[in-house]
Amino acid sequence: MIKFVLEFVIDMNVFGEKWTFTSFGESHGAAIGGVLDGVPAGLHIDFDMIRAELARRAGKKPTEVSLDFYRGFTGVSSRAQNEPDEVEWLSGVLDGVTLGTPIAFIIHNKDARPEDYEFLKHNYRVGHADKVYELKYGIRDHRGGGRASARETAARVVAGCIAKQTLRLKGISIRASLIQVGAETDPAKFADTIAAYQKDGDSIGGIIECRINGLPAGTGEPIFDKLQAHLAFAIMSINACKGFEYGTGFGGVTQPGSAINAISGGIAGGISDGTEVIFRCVFKPTPSTPKAGVKGRHDACVAVRAVPVVEAMTALCLVQFL
Amino acid sequence: MIKFVLEFVIDMNVFGEKWTFTSFGESHGAAIGGVLDGVPAGLHIDFDMIRAELARRAGKKPTEVSLDFYRGFTGVSSRAQNEPDEVEWLSGVLDGVTLGTPIAFIIHNKDARPEDYEFLKHNYRVGHADKVYELKYGIRDHRGGGRASARETAARVVAGCIAKQTLRLKGISIRASLIQVGAETDPAKFADTIAAYQKDGDSIGGIIECRINGLPAGTGEPIFDKLQAHLAFAIMSINACKGFEYGTGFGGVTQPGSAINAISGGIAGGISDGTEVIFRCVFKPTPSTPKAGVKGRHDACVAVRAVPVVEAMTALCLVQFL
Amino acid sequence: MIKFVLEFVIDMNVFGEKWTFTSFGESHGAAIGGVLDGVPAGLHIDFDMIRAELARRAGKKPTEVSLDFYRGFTGVSSRAQNEPDEVEWLSGVLDGVTLGTPIAFIIHNKDARPEDYEFLKHNYRVGHADKVYELKYGIRDHRGGGRASARETAARVVAGCIAKQTLRLKGISIRASLIQVGAETDPAKFADTIAAYQKDGDSIGGIIECRINGLPAGTGEPIFDKLQAHLAFAIMSINACKGFEYGTGFGGVTQPGSAINAISGGIAGGISDGTEVIFRCVFKPTPSTPKAGVKGRHDACVAVRAVPVVEAMTALCLVQFL
Amino acid sequence: MIKFVLEFVIDMNVFGEKWTFTSFGESHGAAIGGVLDGVPAGLHIDFDMIRAELARRAGKKPTEVSLDFYRGFTGVSSRAQNEPDEVEWLSGVLDGVTLGTPIAFIIHNKDARPEDYEFLKHNYRVGHADKVYELKYGIRDHRGGGRASARETAARVVAGCIAKQTLRLKGISIRASLIQVGAETDPAKFADTIAAYQKDGDSIGGIIECRINGLPAGTGEPIFDKLQAHLAFAIMSINACKGFEYGTGFGGVTQPGSAINAISGGIAGGISDGTEVIFRCVFKPTPSTPKAGVKGRHDACVAVRAVPVVEAMTALCLVQFL
Repeated sequence: MIKFVLEFVIDMNVFGEKWTFTSFGESHGAAIGGVLDGVPAGLHIDFDMIRAELARRAGKKPTEVSLDFYRGFTGVSSRAQNEPDEVEWLSGVLDGVTLGTPIAFIIHNKDARPEDYEFLKHNYRVGHADKVYELKYGIRDHRGGGRASARETAARVVAGCIAKQTLRLKGISIRASLIQVGAETDPAKFADTIAAYQKDGDSIGGIIECRINGLPAGTGEPIFDKLQAHLAFAIMSINACKGFEYGTGFGGVTQPGSAINAISGGIAGGISDGTEVIFRCVFKPTPSTPKAGVKGRHDACVAVRAVPVVEAMTALCLVQFL
Repeated sequence: MIKFVLEFVIDMNVFGEKWTFTSFGESHGAAIGGVLDGVPAGLHIDFDMIRAELARRAGKKPTEVSLDFYRGFTGVSSRAQNEPDEVEWLSGVLDGVTLGTPIAFIIHNKDARPEDYEFLKHNYRVGHADKVYELKYGIRDHRGGGRASARETAARVVAGCIAKQTLRLKGISIRASLIQVGAETDPAKFADTIAAYQKDGDSIGGIIECRINGLPAGTGEPIFDKLQAHLAFAIMSINACKGFEYGTGFGGVTQPGSAINAISGGIAGGISDGTEVIFRCVFKPTPSTPKAGVKGRHDACVAVRAVPVVEAMTALCLVQFL
Repeated sequence: MIKFVLEFVIDMNVFGEKWTFTSFGESHGAAIGGVLDGVPAGLHIDFDMIRAELARRAGKKPTEVSLDFYRGFTGVSSRAQNEPDEVEWLSGVLDGVTLGTPIAFIIHNKDARPEDYEFLKHNYRVGHADKVYELKYGIRDHRGGGRASARETAARVVAGCIAKQTLRLKGISIRASLIQVGAETDPAKFADTIAAYQKDGDSIGGIIECRINGLPAGTGEPIFDKLQAHLAFAIMSINACKGFEYGTGFGGVTQPGSAINAISGGIAGGISDGTEVIFRCVFKPTPSTPKAGVKGRHDACVAVRAVPVVEAMTALCLVQFL
Repeated sequence: MIKFVLEFVIDMNVFGEKWTFTSFGESHGAAIGGVLDGVPAGLHIDFDMIRAELARRAGKKPTEVSLDFYRGFTGVSSRAQNEPDEVEWLSGVLDGVTLGTPIAFIIHNKDARPEDYEFLKHNYRVGHADKVYELKYGIRDHRGGGRASARETAARVVAGCIAKQTLRLKGISIRASLIQVGAETDPAKFADTIAAYQKDGDSIGGIIECRINGLPAGTGEPIFDKLQAHLAFAIMSINACKGFEYGTGFGGVTQPGSAINAISGGIAGGISDGTEVIFRCVFKPTPSTPKAGVKGRHDACVAVRAVPVVEAMTALCLVQFL
């Protein structure tokens, strides 16, 4: 009955060792979801926050999700569809409170339709991972492509929210915001900048800055497990991210030690120093644009939707140290 | 809104490093389930085998699950209820074939009813983990008890079946069977022996032997990661298991080297030698009996239902080495 | 210049995740040793205890190492040579106190001589790992055999002593002793029993019992990471160990639940219950005997020398949970 | 005898899961060193390369180590002392060939002198980790500071050389070079630029570019374990590194998708695409300068000495995937 076993495996789908987050699901399958193991019992989950964060990730207008933690510019994604990403909680939560057991949740793929498959077949373009998938796995499998879809980040956002809520109880806050779109650094002009690329059938990258406040001094380890190394790992695992820097970063290279000695970015020797941790990351423009021959609506600046994902991965990183 | 965070966590719920199996779910919650990460693409899943193995675990009569791989004596559990454990596949499988992505599955708790809670409240008895839970977690939480339920082993059986099917393709088979119940070693008399303890309101332990055939020589590592060490870890993680031995085991202590040198149990120096691997494990009698003051039906010999769980954990252990 | 790379690797030589112990060294090389990462700063190392434990492992007479913690029968190994295993401390210790940094230590192989190589060449016998090494690594490499030598356990004893000393500060003690040699269970007669096998050119197995006192209730995790599973993994990684059991063990199989419910062996549901933890393990007789055609002195009961190794691995296991 | 246990631990000192590198040693202690577990047997170690790479790390003039692989500008460090870092091999190597067992090596601290302690006491300055150590570990322990010393990177270089030599056999080469010092991007002028800062008692940062050639397409995993995430983790664990980018990096933010779609930096979707992998990282200027009140010789541009460390960590990262 069983004919063959292809040897390819798309692993690993597990992040973290203290809080272990396992992500699963294909964009075209029954559901995506995750299991978060390591969350202490007794946390009252803030479901509104999770809904709002999922809306941010889906590119909703700020007014649609006007909650107090919804901050900074996130723009309006042209890809924002009516995806009501609703989370179903399978375990680990009773009456809205965590049990200390693994939290399993799923988001059903309500919009999975045959035409999605067609879309995926058209998806093999420059700048995408399609070609390397073929190289690595030996078959042109647009089903596997369903796993690589950015939709997977919705599960990261849900898990990240639980991590953020736990951190919030310890007085630690994480706030990411878009600080640059193309050459533009004035947030007031981001929407126009993106609209121009949108209209032109082109796309543009962006830089996100993330600030962590309230992190106790002493977080991180001095040799290999430096705090910045773990943050870089978490952030660079997000699709389309091309760089990570903290403190003086790349820009600091032109400044002498005498001028920038005191700028730590919140981390010294791999260990948080008790001041605000500041890092930045850059997201490339999507290659799927009308200009590149891809028809239909396109996301002119994916960095917009990456903001809540950056916060989520930051939170999932930090809880490993607490 | 958030009042407090208890610090207790029931972790870790993850088994394995190459194939990572994450188990989740409370016996009283919406569902139990698991995520199996690391399964290669292209495996045609044998769903009938999974159904039959779940039936074995649920203590069904052999005749009800008369499939060719259903072997050895497993007896009839008095706890066998009409639990139609049906698996819902959420991801990682398309048209019955694995995708190489994480396989998430759930088993709904159809029978979760309020009276179950009452049952759990009566469950704090000698020989159970209730007291240590209280000691460890600081609260008398019968919800957490739901996690420790033997029902969790159903998820192990599902994951173990996928591991077994993969091993089968490589010519590796795993067969566990009950070889002793109380002092009785004749399988023909196991049913009567158990029935006698059942009638007496008492319970009895059993020994399971497991035989692995077709395992290539060279499996295992010579220092810490010996094959027998990993098998012992996997098997001793099953509820009620009190001991593990392989080859000459404890019984061999009375035999001189000259008599037993040639009996390897299939492993030498931590590494499989290409012959049949044979190990045994012992399961204690359940403490929840009428004789101990626990009313209602009871499982006079839990070792019966442990047989497919032993196979499942063996399979999940072996796939780590392939 | 570089001709070829054989793909074989004798890994993994790392034990533990919180306290990480890396063992290295060939019995014929410059030195064996280890690195122990995770030891807190401020521990005053008891070097006398380490010397005495190494002497126990080397099979010295009790009188030669008459220290107060030297307890139980360990007999006199015929293999006991004048190996003055002296530990050189490379890092992590200053003025006898741990620094909180990795502790690296070595034991020089003073007695490495050409004739040892000859001995190794004669060593390919039934019951040894020689054959599986050839199967696994594809070459008959007696140099690799040097890694599998029981001498490697000296490094485990050193690391285990540091673990034991840390546990001692927390009020946790570990005491292993030989409780059976062949069919003999009276310690007063162990020496004679072993001497008889020695004289006969044969060998015999033994059972070691280990008792852990002072372990706080709550140690261990309820699902996969049960305390007994981790203890079994640690103990089964010792050469020649063929079985592990705790509490009622295999012997309990003949007793009804009503008789043995209250015997926990110190662990319930995978978690220590605050009472004495008791486990047993069995060691097979060495296959290297005159009767099997191996000339020269032989170790008639390797279980004797395994006693301090059992304690060491128990300690290295327990510190993972603290 | 034992008075107290401080709870601080400087962990973790282990890098990697397939090839496990454990680093140990204090800069003022007997030795620093490492254990590399996972190296296949049969590799003929190129000791000359290791000597040359250690010389690069020590800041020697190129002419002093004029070997064919010594490439790019590395400048002349003012800190370059006569430290003849000689490696002593303890295990895992016989007659210059790896055995497939753990390779343990040490570098004796020949120059450890009392005045070093004085130096360390003067070392608590802005921009250093001294303060966070005090915050984290609760004591002002300049012995612990010995662990954080950049001298630890010598062990990384040794282990990295073995990784590089293994990669070289598979046709994979790693070449890092300094591409920017301050605002200067012309390598011909780096020496003068650094000399100017040196003379001024100040310091300056630098950018290192690393190019990996011959890496097979398919290296990396698409979700969390993306190749770029692991490279970022490895590189950001180096002292003084403030940022990591690959492909278009931060600079690409001003370019539209239509202009930069085709620049992958050798990685797509987390997986190498078979083209040259190019990444850059930035190193801050040392805060220990005469201008900042620190007397004595100073290293005006630590990026110079970081070049071989970048290559070493890249190699240790890549071998995890092979």
